[in-house]
Amino acid sequence: MGESRRCVTLTTDFGTSGPYAGSMRGAVLRANPEVVVVDNTHEIGRGNIREGALVIGCSFASFPDGTIHIVVVDPTVGSDRLPILVSTENHYFLAPDNGVLSYIFQHEEIYNVVEITEDHFFNKPTSRTFHGRDIFAPVAGWLAKVQDVGRFGEPISEYVIERFAEPVQVKEKAWKGEILFIDPFGNAITNLTTDHIPGDENGYPAVNRILTLRGEIRQVRTFYCERTEDEPFLILGSLGYYEIAVNGASAAERLQLAPGNEVGVILR
Amino acid sequence: MGESRRCVTLTTDFGTSGPYAGSMRGAVLRANPEVVVVDNTHEIGRGNIREGALVIGCSFASFPDGTIHIVVVDPTVGSDRLPILVSTENHYFLAPDNGVLSYIFQHEEIYNVVEITEDHFFNKPTSRTFHGRDIFAPVAGWLAKVQDVGRFGEPISEYVIERFAEPVQVKEKAWKGEILFIDPFGNAITNLTTDHIPGDENGYPAVNRILTLRGEIRQVRTFYCERTEDEPFLILGSLGYYEIAVNGASAAERLQLAPGNEVGVILR
Amino acid sequence: MGESRRCVTLTTDFGTSGPYAGSMRGAVLRANPEVVVVDNTHEIGRGNIREGALVIGCSFASFPDGTIHIVVVDPTVGSDRLPILVSTENHYFLAPDNGVLSYIFQHEEIYNVVEITEDHFFNKPTSRTFHGRDIFAPVAGWLAKVQDVGRFGEPISEYVIERFAEPVQVKEKAWKGEILFIDPFGNAITNLTTDHIPGDENGYPAVNRILTLRGEIRQVRTFYCERTEDEPFLILGSLGYYEIAVNGASAAERLQLAPGNEVGVILR
Repeated sequence: MGESRRCVTLTTDFGTSGPYAGSMRGAVLRANPEVVVVDNTHEIGRGNIREGALVIGCSFASFPDGTIHIVVVDPTVGSDRLPILVSTENHYFLAPDNGVLSYIFQHEEIYNVVEITEDHFFNKPTSRTFHGRDIFAPVAGWLAKVQDVGRFGEPISEYVIERFAEPVQVKEKAWKGEILFIDPFGNAITNLTTDHIPGDENGYPAVNRILTLRGEIRQVRTFYCERTEDEPFLILGSLGYYEIAVNGASAAERLQLAPGNEVGVILR
Repeated sequence: MGESRRCVTLTTDFGTSGPYAGSMRGAVLRANPEVVVVDNTHEIGRGNIREGALVIGCSFASFPDGTIHIVVVDPTVGSDRLPILVSTENHYFLAPDNGVLSYIFQHEEIYNVVEITEDHFFNKPTSRTFHGRDIFAPVAGWLAKVQDVGRFGEPISEYVIERFAEPVQVKEKAWKGEILFIDPFGNAITNLTTDHIPGDENGYPAVNRILTLRGEIRQVRTFYCERTEDEPFLILGSLGYYEIAVNGASAAERLQLAPGNEVGVILR
Repeated sequence: MGESRRCVTLTTDFGTSGPYAGSMRGAVLRANPEVVVVDNTHEIGRGNIREGALVIGCSFASFPDGTIHIVVVDPTVGSDRLPILVSTENHYFLAPDNGVLSYIFQHEEIYNVVEITEDHFFNKPTSRTFHGRDIFAPVAGWLAKVQDVGRFGEPISEYVIERFAEPVQVKEKAWKGEILFIDPFGNAITNLTTDHIPGDENGYPAVNRILTLRGEIRQVRTFYCERTEDEPFLILGSLGYYEIAVNGASAAERLQLAPGNEVGVILR
């Protein structure tokens, strides 16, 4: 690990009212006041493991190499689900073993996965209901110090991977995809990437049309305000996924789109 | 005080839209760019001194020793209420003397309480409406530097303590408590602790039943998803208080619970 | 620039759910892990350039000298609008050239304005839809290191200034102003300052009455809880503007006030 102060990020469903987000920030710093604690977001939908998996998957790479990411969407806290510590080439992830790291497992090269058992790193007494504060936060602080994942437990070879719907090629020129989540602007982020829809010679998605539950989309753009029409369009978003968007308005509201909705694609 | 960078936490009712939360973070750093400014929360209910007192009381101990906590829920800002600086064994608190530190006064050993009068530490001109930015933030920054509370004013011996409802023992096996606040998950945090309801040999709260305005609760758990029934239950929460909860849903909505509601306890 | 860690502030309309705010915080630290990233706010109204301009204008001076402020309210991201870097005596501003720095241009002495063209500082590939993460964040990180604005592009002499409504003197004793924005407490911040309404010998605004679409306001105060009546009043707020407020309640709701509403002033 480098000489700079190490970042610890927080991705949770705690919200920012109440004492939970603040307590986690504090508990990381209490274990190690030299790290930089950075919120990723505390507004994952309550208990929405899939949304948590997607948001950490879409954002972790923006942080410095060596960052320790705590991901706590943990509806089964206190049960026998394990706390795990995952190492990839450049990042560390601390989370309950409930699928919330599925995107990382599916898209990154995994160096190892350790079951966190060394409870002398935990806050005492260790609550059964707030492992974010009592287990994950202090372990993150200590990991930044001791720099050795083997100090926290033994490697395991089985862990939970949720197979988030991958697009399916239904014909030579047709894919069936899905809406992953709605972003704060109301853009509907799909699971379709340039693996499924190539860009044409001008950078536009090479689609004939997109089919949603509420009708067809035929317009394509490379940036949101590219044309003035107030129509939904398909655009390759900054997260690497195609999005259904409306310029200056919420596509999700306009088209009543929700996570999990099917999206049909007819390629050109 | 130690050698690590000192933490300054912010607990306010300012919300995070608008320029107020950002201005406070900036004003601390402007006075002392070496400190670490950490949000506890800016979403205390507007002017809700009791909620502010509870949230800082439930979270301050998660932060490193030596942390300076600014608590600004200040509906009478600009009046003759005093700004105070409170020292406990391991923490400092800066707040208006309006009861928002009542939990600290009632539960921590107080070293001293200083009325902040030394206005050469304040931002100039000092507004009458935003002491968070103009008094508490720069004093926090300077306190981290000068490390001597006596530099900010004289000790006082009288200050405001709101007696938040303490549970009352109404019979040998019966207590009357109260709901303190609703957390972001919809759990209803009561003022009942293990002082009032002992745990049984398996760690369950030794209650026969809980009485709320909307009916009885008979189920008890040690973690939220311990059983699959979709029923309200009593659980010892991570803040040290018993909570009324529903797994995966809002107990407050389900049972129409609100802060201040009475809660009856019949012990086993 | 000084020896302390440099602050980089974020003012955006991204909201704090989803991966955008976190990704920006990360991208600044990835470019330069030595800076301190501080949220100003991520809750500017979506695409509301005027609100963004006002909020950064009202808050930047609370931060330390040398701070780099990133302001991303950028509805035309990806179009030919320029990314710019603005230097004033004590602060730096990075933003799209769309008017969101109008307050800075109108109220601060501008040292220079540089069109950011040196794309070797950008994240690659550079998206057309998220310049906050891919252009402004890494440029902020690098600026803190190289400390030379000329490294990022050439100075330009034309840039967008939106003339936010200035108050108009309609008679010797009468001004016509406007509501700029509603703060999180529901106070209606006007564009009227002590340039338009002098304070009297006791510090009260020397007005006879204020006219809004919903009736007259005759009460004036120097702090919110100065009197117990539950009436709207005029007060000089902490941002330097007169505000229409109600103690302990939302003046905007009470009087149905909104940004852009005219406000008439009859001086004493």
